[in-house]
Amino acid sequence: MKVNEPAELLAMAQRGSRVGLARLLTYVESGTRRHRESVALAYQHQSPYVLGITGAPGAGKSTLTDRLIATGLNVGDCGNPLEQIGVLCVDPSSPITGGAILGDRIRMQEHASDERVFIRSMATRGHLGGLSQAVPDALRVMGAAGFSMVLVETVGVGQMEVQIASAADTTVVVMNPGWGDAMQANKAGLLEVADIFIINKADRAGVRETRRDLEQMLDMGQQRPWRPLILETVATSGTGIDAAWVAVNEHREFQSSSGQFDVRRRDRARSELTRVLTIAVRARVDVVAEGARYDAQLSALIEGHTDPYAAAEALLELA
Amino acid sequence: MKVNEPAELLAMAQRGSRVGLARLLTYVESGTRRHRESVALAYQHQSPYVLGITGAPGAGKSTLTDRLIATGLNVGDCGNPLEQIGVLCVDPSSPITGGAILGDRIRMQEHASDERVFIRSMATRGHLGGLSQAVPDALRVMGAAGFSMVLVETVGVGQMEVQIASAADTTVVVMNPGWGDAMQANKAGLLEVADIFIINKADRAGVRETRRDLEQMLDMGQQRPWRPLILETVATSGTGIDAAWVAVNEHREFQSSSGQFDVRRRDRARSELTRVLTIAVRARVDVVAEGARYDAQLSALIEGHTDPYAAAEALLELA
Repeated sequence: MKVNEPAELLAMAQRGSRVGLARLLTYVESGTRRHRESVALAYQHQSPYVLGITGAPGAGKSTLTDRLIATGLNVGDCGNPLEQIGVLCVDPSSPITGGAILGDRIRMQEHASDERVFIRSMATRGHLGGLSQAVPDALRVMGAAGFSMVLVETVGVGQMEVQIASAADTTVVVMNPGWGDAMQANKAGLLEVADIFIINKADRAGVRETRRDLEQMLDMGQQRPWRPLILETVATSGTGIDAAWVAVNEHREFQSSSGQFDVRRRDRARSELTRVLTIAVRARVDVVAEGARYDAQLSALIEGHTDPYAAAEALLELA
Repeated sequence: MKVNEPAELLAMAQRGSRVGLARLLTYVESGTRRHRESVALAYQHQSPYVLGITGAPGAGKSTLTDRLIATGLNVGDCGNPLEQIGVLCVDPSSPITGGAILGDRIRMQEHASDERVFIRSMATRGHLGGLSQAVPDALRVMGAAGFSMVLVETVGVGQMEVQIASAADTTVVVMNPGWGDAMQANKAGLLEVADIFIINKADRAGVRETRRDLEQMLDMGQQRPWRPLILETVATSGTGIDAAWVAVNEHREFQSSSGQFDVRRRDRARSELTRVLTIAVRARVDVVAEGARYDAQLSALIEGHTDPYAAAEALLELA
């Protein structure tokens, strides 16, 4: 018999069932009543530690993510190997729905059969709020299912990708050596959100220039409690990956000891609550802005029997 | 004794008092209770015929507007000279407030002492909705004061300028001869909103090319019931102004006879109502998204006692 109840599915997921977890995430993507139930359950549990990975297409994010997963499973956080790692591949530009797009199929083959790794892809859905709402909810569901760490990899560097990646506890920005890459990153707003810059494909020419550009821009920018680290990797060969993982843990420890962790989580909770509020209110406007009552007020407005403010007030009283 | 009551001020304005009208428009800009009262009164009267004039800075809009005012006062609409003309100069990019910016002072000097012309400048105000709300309200107030025609001149071709100008009954887009001007107009979204294109400074080279580019783009674009006219003027010498005024009246007559006038006004009323609704709802969110109740829900969210949806619902029940 197929289990549909979020509470049962979460219990399954907590016992290690990937099917249960996948079904909960499908609810989260759907934006239906079961979405609400799943999220309500998930928020009773800890949020996972979220590592965001972003950067322009072609920078080597997927290979780097693969390598970081392997290192995370071996080395772990705070000296303890991680039992399991969750990965959320987010593509706001793709209209493909469901849990099986590029992330699951054509990449991360190394971990495809590794039971310690759970990979889920999310693309744009039609429901209100879309991905920017579904991603934080999905992260909480994965946390509730027992994942203490989740990697969120975004595909591009559009506004939404940057927003999603920067809502992480630690945000990694991947770039390549060469003229202009640092400038591009700056333009995309990545300088303000990065905790760690990784210059991947660092066996190519231009590493020194990119690093210098980044340092200069960081010098000129607003000074924050944590100055972003700049690291070099060659993800294809594995060079520099261990150091990158150490940097992630370093940032994590800085956050805990400095109190920045709580500040960030409070900021994140605030922006989540405001976003949900805005969506809920917009839904009310949509209900009010159609139907016979709206048409009646519109006609009264056109015929000079009311003004827009009085008409809006009359409609909102019924909302 | 200073008169403050909108009803009294409107009565004054209807008897020809510019002071009364100016004070009502200040209320409209302020977004206060008196704004609401003034608008409620204004909507009991006819809307004026609105002629929108937009185009890139430097195209010669001000001089052209000057000339059109003079022609309008002499020739009028439907064969009758206009008794008076209102002019609203809108600059969304300027933070200067009140009724006395560039429009009134350094230009339209020809009409500065002409009692038949009322010129008012509007810049960005801080209140909710801003200019996109204040402009339609100001137009209605001017209509209630007895102006049967108002010219709305916008300063640039930003999104808001285009939105304001295109909410007119007839929209004139001013450009200059030369390579690329038609392309720029297209990019700014002016092709879809123009009823009349005026190639001003038509004594310069490139008129034929600009006209050809415009015709081609109109051929390629969506076909509408009214194909925009393309006229040539030299506003500084007055060449072509009479023909431009004839074109405005031609479009006006087409709108009446084709029923497009009512369609446009209905669309305009709909977008005004929806805008006011959205503003009203957003104001509710702002009230809900602060204060002790919000803080309590936020803390509950951070501590895992609630989820964003439940918190938003709890806050909105009190809205």
